[in-house]
Amino acid sequence: MVGVNKRQVRVGMIGYKFMGKAHSNGYRNLPYFFDTPAVPVLQAIAGRDEQGVKAAAETMGWASYETDWRRLLERDDIDVIDIVTPNNVHAEMAIAAAEAGKHVLCEKPLAMTVEQAKRMVDAVKKAGVVHMICHNYRFAPAVQFAKKLIEEGRLGKIYHIRAQYLQDWIMDPKFPLVWRLRKEVTGSGAHGDIAAHILDLARFLVGEFSEVVGMMETFIKERPLGEMTGGLNASANSGKMGQVDVDDCSAFLARFENGAVGVFEATRFAAGNRNGNRFEINGEKGSIRWDLENMNNLQVYLTDDEPGLQGFRTINCTEEHHPYAGAYWPAGHIIGYEHTFINLMKEFMEGIVNGTSPAPNFEDGYRNQLVLASVEKSVETGSWVKISEVDPS
Amino acid sequence: MVGVNKRQVRVGMIGYKFMGKAHSNGYRNLPYFFDTPAVPVLQAIAGRDEQGVKAAAETMGWASYETDWRRLLERDDIDVIDIVTPNNVHAEMAIAAAEAGKHVLCEKPLAMTVEQAKRMVDAVKKAGVVHMICHNYRFAPAVQFAKKLIEEGRLGKIYHIRAQYLQDWIMDPKFPLVWRLRKEVTGSGAHGDIAAHILDLARFLVGEFSEVVGMMETFIKERPLGEMTGGLNASANSGKMGQVDVDDCSAFLARFENGAVGVFEATRFAAGNRNGNRFEINGEKGSIRWDLENMNNLQVYLTDDEPGLQGFRTINCTEEHHPYAGAYWPAGHIIGYEHTFINLMKEFMEGIVNGTSPAPNFEDGYRNQLVLASVEKSVETGSWVKISEVDPS
Amino acid sequence: MVGVNKRQVRVGMIGYKFMGKAHSNGYRNLPYFFDTPAVPVLQAIAGRDEQGVKAAAETMGWASYETDWRRLLERDDIDVIDIVTPNNVHAEMAIAAAEAGKHVLCEKPLAMTVEQAKRMVDAVKKAGVVHMICHNYRFAPAVQFAKKLIEEGRLGKIYHIRAQYLQDWIMDPKFPLVWRLRKEVTGSGAHGDIAAHILDLARFLVGEFSEVVGMMETFIKERPLGEMTGGLNASANSGKMGQVDVDDCSAFLARFENGAVGVFEATRFAAGNRNGNRFEINGEKGSIRWDLENMNNLQVYLTDDEPGLQGFRTINCTEEHHPYAGAYWPAGHIIGYEHTFINLMKEFMEGIVNGTSPAPNFEDGYRNQLVLASVEKSVETGSWVKISEVDPS
Amino acid sequence: MVGVNKRQVRVGMIGYKFMGKAHSNGYRNLPYFFDTPAVPVLQAIAGRDEQGVKAAAETMGWASYETDWRRLLERDDIDVIDIVTPNNVHAEMAIAAAEAGKHVLCEKPLAMTVEQAKRMVDAVKKAGVVHMICHNYRFAPAVQFAKKLIEEGRLGKIYHIRAQYLQDWIMDPKFPLVWRLRKEVTGSGAHGDIAAHILDLARFLVGEFSEVVGMMETFIKERPLGEMTGGLNASANSGKMGQVDVDDCSAFLARFENGAVGVFEATRFAAGNRNGNRFEINGEKGSIRWDLENMNNLQVYLTDDEPGLQGFRTINCTEEHHPYAGAYWPAGHIIGYEHTFINLMKEFMEGIVNGTSPAPNFEDGYRNQLVLASVEKSVETGSWVKISEVDPS
Repeated sequence: MVGVNKRQVRVGMIGYKFMGKAHSNGYRNLPYFFDTPAVPVLQAIAGRDEQGVKAAAETMGWASYETDWRRLLERDDIDVIDIVTPNNVHAEMAIAAAEAGKHVLCEKPLAMTVEQAKRMVDAVKKAGVVHMICHNYRFAPAVQFAKKLIEEGRLGKIYHIRAQYLQDWIMDPKFPLVWRLRKEVTGSGAHGDIAAHILDLARFLVGEFSEVVGMMETFIKERPLGEMTGGLNASANSGKMGQVDVDDCSAFLARFENGAVGVFEATRFAAGNRNGNRFEINGEKGSIRWDLENMNNLQVYLTDDEPGLQGFRTINCTEEHHPYAGAYWPAGHIIGYEHTFINLMKEFMEGIVNGTSPAPNFEDGYRNQLVLASVEKSVETGSWVKISEVDPS
Repeated sequence: MVGVNKRQVRVGMIGYKFMGKAHSNGYRNLPYFFDTPAVPVLQAIAGRDEQGVKAAAETMGWASYETDWRRLLERDDIDVIDIVTPNNVHAEMAIAAAEAGKHVLCEKPLAMTVEQAKRMVDAVKKAGVVHMICHNYRFAPAVQFAKKLIEEGRLGKIYHIRAQYLQDWIMDPKFPLVWRLRKEVTGSGAHGDIAAHILDLARFLVGEFSEVVGMMETFIKERPLGEMTGGLNASANSGKMGQVDVDDCSAFLARFENGAVGVFEATRFAAGNRNGNRFEINGEKGSIRWDLENMNNLQVYLTDDEPGLQGFRTINCTEEHHPYAGAYWPAGHIIGYEHTFINLMKEFMEGIVNGTSPAPNFEDGYRNQLVLASVEKSVETGSWVKISEVDPS
Repeated sequence: MVGVNKRQVRVGMIGYKFMGKAHSNGYRNLPYFFDTPAVPVLQAIAGRDEQGVKAAAETMGWASYETDWRRLLERDDIDVIDIVTPNNVHAEMAIAAAEAGKHVLCEKPLAMTVEQAKRMVDAVKKAGVVHMICHNYRFAPAVQFAKKLIEEGRLGKIYHIRAQYLQDWIMDPKFPLVWRLRKEVTGSGAHGDIAAHILDLARFLVGEFSEVVGMMETFIKERPLGEMTGGLNASANSGKMGQVDVDDCSAFLARFENGAVGVFEATRFAAGNRNGNRFEINGEKGSIRWDLENMNNLQVYLTDDEPGLQGFRTINCTEEHHPYAGAYWPAGHIIGYEHTFINLMKEFMEGIVNGTSPAPNFEDGYRNQLVLASVEKSVETGSWVKISEVDPS
Repeated sequence: MVGVNKRQVRVGMIGYKFMGKAHSNGYRNLPYFFDTPAVPVLQAIAGRDEQGVKAAAETMGWASYETDWRRLLERDDIDVIDIVTPNNVHAEMAIAAAEAGKHVLCEKPLAMTVEQAKRMVDAVKKAGVVHMICHNYRFAPAVQFAKKLIEEGRLGKIYHIRAQYLQDWIMDPKFPLVWRLRKEVTGSGAHGDIAAHILDLARFLVGEFSEVVGMMETFIKERPLGEMTGGLNASANSGKMGQVDVDDCSAFLARFENGAVGVFEATRFAAGNRNGNRFEINGEKGSIRWDLENMNNLQVYLTDDEPGLQGFRTINCTEEHHPYAGAYWPAGHIIGYEHTFINLMKEFMEGIVNGTSPAPNFEDGYRNQLVLASVEKSVETGSWVKISEVDPS
């Protein structure tokens, strides 16, 4: 067995749909590619529907299952609680996990509200457990390489970031009113789901936000009731209609503490953009561009390139020179979406061994929540909102 | 001589730098490619510096020159006044031209203020002359083809536009404080110069704006004094420094009257983007993308394409099926920046013959000015501004 | 355990370097993504160096190891022999495996010579075992989708294929003379290694070759002796130099039985092309383009698209409509190089259950070998060579 | 009038269809963009059909016309003969022009045969006139910049060129049998028409060919009779059918005198490729890529770029650092197909003033003809042909 002589980190995961599949796969594959000081064990999975959770455990390779997530907290053969549930239960679960002394990995967004997020941070800190939030896109090698270039000062002072997360999976008015479109379960629509990713990338690469002004819109206001069926698919479960009470799109302007300005847009109504998570950052000495649909590449422009020879370089970040990439395949042999989770889990395992909480951790989740909340407040007031206005800490 | 037997439209142009070269070239080439009912004659050019204007007349093929632009108005061998001067004199010149019974083509932005723009519209209407504003990018075949697709309903109801005009020509802090960076001459920086273009494209393709909220920033606040030397080049003319009082970048969120939402950004600080005028429009039945740096192509996505075969099509708009393209070369033989002016001037000549003012005309210029002013007001107030708030009419 | 109640197919693998890692990973991940009627078990791995093979077994998750590959044939807990060794031992191993009644998966190229390949085909047929050759690139979803389009007649009669496999990993003259550059071990250079892949894709997508004329070149004729160290890396092991006796590049023109013509090129000296496996196919009704470095995308052009709207569509083959893609992640969430092996192994497992040998099998390997040999003969003679000339069967 | 005080070079052009339009446009625009020591005057145009040539003269701005091309030679107000006729009359006209003491610009390919080409070279040399052949694609700024990089040694020793000229304008079997498809008029099909361009680019950028082996095919063997109607359009003029006796495609492998190898392909049957003239050159220190459909860009890869930051740079060759580009518009404002002719004519005018024949001149046309003929001979013999074998000189 791979990693059989290493420290075993026994994971208990709550939830088992799209993100459950991605996380399980990440844990399974981590020891194959990375020589981490500890390896994850797929110990137990929890879900309310016994038939469903049992089948998921089998399909995804978990050793046992529970129908009550609180049972995972009681088991002493569980070291980590991994929360891949809808957003409205993140806080309750994460706090309980911390109080039970378990390390916690939580899906994004961290919480429904700033207040919840604050309590989650307090709980993990008080308990002294290791915590991370699963902003997996930070862990594309090209994104990590972008971070490295920025930290080395290769772009100089940052002037601009423009970031878009464009999807189109709910454009059909017949697409049902699943949990991801119900405010009481998800908190918000595209905003918390995908704007959260791009603002997290902005915080990672550019720095802290200082103020924002935003806009949201719901294009399809009524939909048939229904359920997610796996991945991002869904089916209507009756002829009944319900009101959509979350945003179909969210956009905002931003200023950062370091003087940079940003333009952000997230939508599920950009026809033809299946998963277009894109950003461009412009600094005084260069620029970078990234697009998730071509995630192995980073476009880099450097102003100190020789005149006449200046242009964006298309760098295939699959070389040993690029973060994480050396663990996989030879240069030019690309990796995919799922590997971002493996890379994140590498950091998580090392954090557990070292007793530190690698970024993005609950503090990042909290700071992201402040930005989400500031935009929401701005949408209500129609004016700019300073991040500090919504920060109770 | 090409077009020698056609109606001659005698042009008098005020100014002769970058735009003067582009306009002169447009007039010269129009009869070669299009069989218009009237052809432009490069009759006279005006500029204050005799040596400069004389040389320009010779280089660009104008039959005569004047050192006082008002002389052009007095000459009865001039039918059209073409204004390619800095923005602060557009209003005075255009109004005088209209009063002198001359047709008018004016560079963008139309004016320094809404009030000026209003007076300009009133003047051309009162005089009954034909008028256009030179938003040349509307006349790229790919943009015109986009318009056609939208008008035919191929994209359905429009949800989104995101447009960026990204340049980098003043990033060097040593780039001098030319007229394009001085508020008293230009009115604003990137905002009136290039944001004006993308909001004009949005009005052309999506519809009228209803409200906006914006942000501006000046990254380099002090520069050496200097002058434009041709194209977008400049040279410092002394060691003295001056304050930059216009924006280096401008960004704004927008709502349109038809329910669409928009995200706009214009900057001269996006390293590596020499002339990145780009937009993407998403509708309920499809999407389009365009980029000036690859201006012959239009990307088109149609939701009613067969499942599995859906994807953005890269359409090289050089076929007889594409507006204006049939006048040039066989399919796949691309045209360039300068041809957008030729196409615009085709419309202008036809307008003069027909006695109509083709879009974009001074009305468009005025409506664009309202959007520019609304963003400016929003930057002052920190809140959303309705277009109607700044519209005195 | 995933797939624990299914038929277990116990694999014994010979070799454990780059391809060993890719195959092991494929077996490990197959049951996670596909619900196949049988699942592979990583039973035993063989290699001459005990320390090396033991470490590999542990790292890659194999249950046991052997230092003599013939031991695998003797073990009755082994159902499949997977050969990932250098080319000069493929024939001996595959024939022995077949004679021992084991199913066989063999890396490409099948053999050193047509004669060897012939004996291999005869052996697997005589033994009645299931056999495949590991041309994994057939199994990119975009390539499979291309195949589907062609079979449905969407491209009509095929006129052209142009295919290139461009790499640059041995351009440095200091890169050592590893086994992949020694004729006695590998048979040929870029020719058998990567030209083999593109001609296999051509046979898959276009049809059988009828005649070829080719060219080879060795740019760096002497190199320091050394060894592969993993992936496509290597290190020199002494100051001694050796003669390179294989081709650095191979190119050939081809005619197909169905009247199509082809142009092929494989090289390891195309600076900047890390792994550029590309093809374009033109038919009477459309064209397709594919590039491994962006392997999730297929470019498709259809002549019956509406005039004016004709252009290559960029199709991200990550939807349930695309072969294999539905087993992974939602649309727009890309997969990578390694998943081509998983897809191939899905077919292999099903073949074993069904008693059939899915393409590409040893017959394909043999036919590919005929093309390789015909090009080699053509290089010697300087003239066109018919495939039938080198085919002893 | 532009350039009115400069030396006037009075042009007499024979032919007035697609190339006539492109050449006329080039002459007309040259003085507007370049300050050459001499300027072309559109003095007279010749064609057999009086109505047609008269209309063409008017449309394209020629001062007079002739219905017998030999009249141009007799006129002493003509300095240059520009030949834009079908290929079968190039030799007769060029030789007569030279004998009449006229400078000559001739469309490509230079001749129908090597023997004709030889006599043409002899004639211009004997007469001491200035001569050029119109391989306009050499004069794209990106191609000239590529040349500069190669000459500076930026790519080091050249290993590879692969070049394709892919079109699709005659794929429809109903497209008529125009002169471009009739051997007696054109000599060959795609071979002399577009393969000629890419082999000229190869000679320009890589060096002289030493040997070739080729293949040709005619996919549609019978077509309705008809005529070109302008550009690359045509119409059938009766229900009668005729045999196509030229190639629809041509492909060949090549070796160069400097040790480089090349792969070339030209076809008019590559659906979706309207005008895909593309090449990639790989050298020991870098690579370049160019594509006519995006002709302003050059992709450049340099092996001495910092590890991790290596990738193809997309250079928009519209800066003053790029050959010819400074004469047009600011950086990022692209030029098009027609400007390649303007740039070529700049060289031609300078050549006339200096008494030299800038490359590509008739010597280049002759050397190109040798390559064309070698490929043709190779198609007949089925074997490699050395260029020297077909060279009578």
